[in-house]
Amino acid sequence: MERHFDEQLKELKSHLMKMSALAEVMIADAVKTVVERDAAAISPVYEREELVNQMQVEIDESCLKLIALNQPAAGDLRFIMGAVKTNSDLERLADEAVNIVQKAEHLLQAEPLKPFEIIPEMAAISRGMVRDSLRAFVNRNTDLAREVLLRDDRLDTLKAKMAEVLTAHMTQAPGAVSRALDLLLISRYLERIGDHATNIAENAIFVVEGVDVRHHADQKRMVKRPFAHIESHGK
Amino acid sequence: MERHFDEQLKELKSHLMKMSALAEVMIADAVKTVVERDAAAISPVYEREELVNQMQVEIDESCLKLIALNQPAAGDLRFIMGAVKTNSDLERLADEAVNIVQKAEHLLQAEPLKPFEIIPEMAAISRGMVRDSLRAFVNRNTDLAREVLLRDDRLDTLKAKMAEVLTAHMTQAPGAVSRALDLLLISRYLERIGDHATNIAENAIFVVEGVDVRHHADQKRMVKRPFAHIESHGK
Repeated sequence: MERHFDEQLKELKSHLMKMSALAEVMIADAVKTVVERDAAAISPVYEREELVNQMQVEIDESCLKLIALNQPAAGDLRFIMGAVKTNSDLERLADEAVNIVQKAEHLLQAEPLKPFEIIPEMAAISRGMVRDSLRAFVNRNTDLAREVLLRDDRLDTLKAKMAEVLTAHMTQAPGAVSRALDLLLISRYLERIGDHATNIAENAIFVVEGVDVRHHADQKRMVKRPFAHIESHGK
Repeated sequence: MERHFDEQLKELKSHLMKMSALAEVMIADAVKTVVERDAAAISPVYEREELVNQMQVEIDESCLKLIALNQPAAGDLRFIMGAVKTNSDLERLADEAVNIVQKAEHLLQAEPLKPFEIIPEMAAISRGMVRDSLRAFVNRNTDLAREVLLRDDRLDTLKAKMAEVLTAHMTQAPGAVSRALDLLLISRYLERIGDHATNIAENAIFVVEGVDVRHHADQKRMVKRPFAHIESHGK
């Protein structure tokens, strides 16, 4: 049973990595439709969304089974709970890629607005955050997780910059309002992807260190290994 | 132990209801700052956010403990997993109230834009969805959960209407771009609150019926009680 459990855990990790890889490609394709005005990149995003949805259901099921059939020790339990949350963040960030594509479809119907190099930069950062937050979670690498958290600031700065540039643009060129709004929302979707990656990275730290860094403004709330005392009760 | 477990479950439910009540008040106050331009409603939102964050950490901990110490049967396990997800959606929808207040603070610094009666209607719907999705989850009321899912359509319609009205307004009155943008984002935050309530309601259905309605476009993926065969393995 023990060995079986380890294999199932390994499989869970590999499924999460696979889902993350799908989400990354979705983000890349979605941004391609915006930046390169490439309509051919649209339908693969919707197709991969189906796969991601399917994987989410399956991963949730496998987490429930892992707990129900193995009664894992507290450390493993914490990891599996973390996997359920990571799964949910992955699905939601993949949804943001779909949101981007929907705006891109709208943008493709009109003349291009002047190019905004901020979008590709935001896309590169958010994709990297997704990849590395997942690697951090799966490999229990808290240094990498903390590094991901830091990258979110750059994304916030770029989002604010984008809002500033586009607000000015809308004010000066009323005919561009609708397109500028689409671009503004796209930048917000990319920032949301970074937020989900941040959640995953925070989760990775919690699973390994038992330190809750989610609401880091409030340092008092940092809980040190709250389940250490019940580790021995598991399995 | 059995009785103790039931009491802990009851406590978990009451904590979730309390957190949901906090979030509802936050939404009401946030929208008050927008609609009534009432600056006094701002700081309570931030204060309640602290409480909600604290509750989230505590509820997560209590869920982990409930599983680790009781090895619950599959039905209870599914409920506790659902509670972890509900907890996360509650915290995130409370964050949207904070997002609304941040935009409202910005709006208060300028002349009011013409009143948009859509915002109060969206707020009323989203608050009701939060309250009822929680009641549905805690009381295992799938009829109520399905009713909540239906209300999300109205919220989407209002969001689209708001975008239409505000885009036109920005085009006609370039001086109002920044304020119109704030209002547009506020309508999107309210719609996101509805999305989180939708997640909670879908989750409520899954916990009771074992039917996954999350990706309901794809009816084939509906999984009927996937853990029925392991119910007997628990505790």
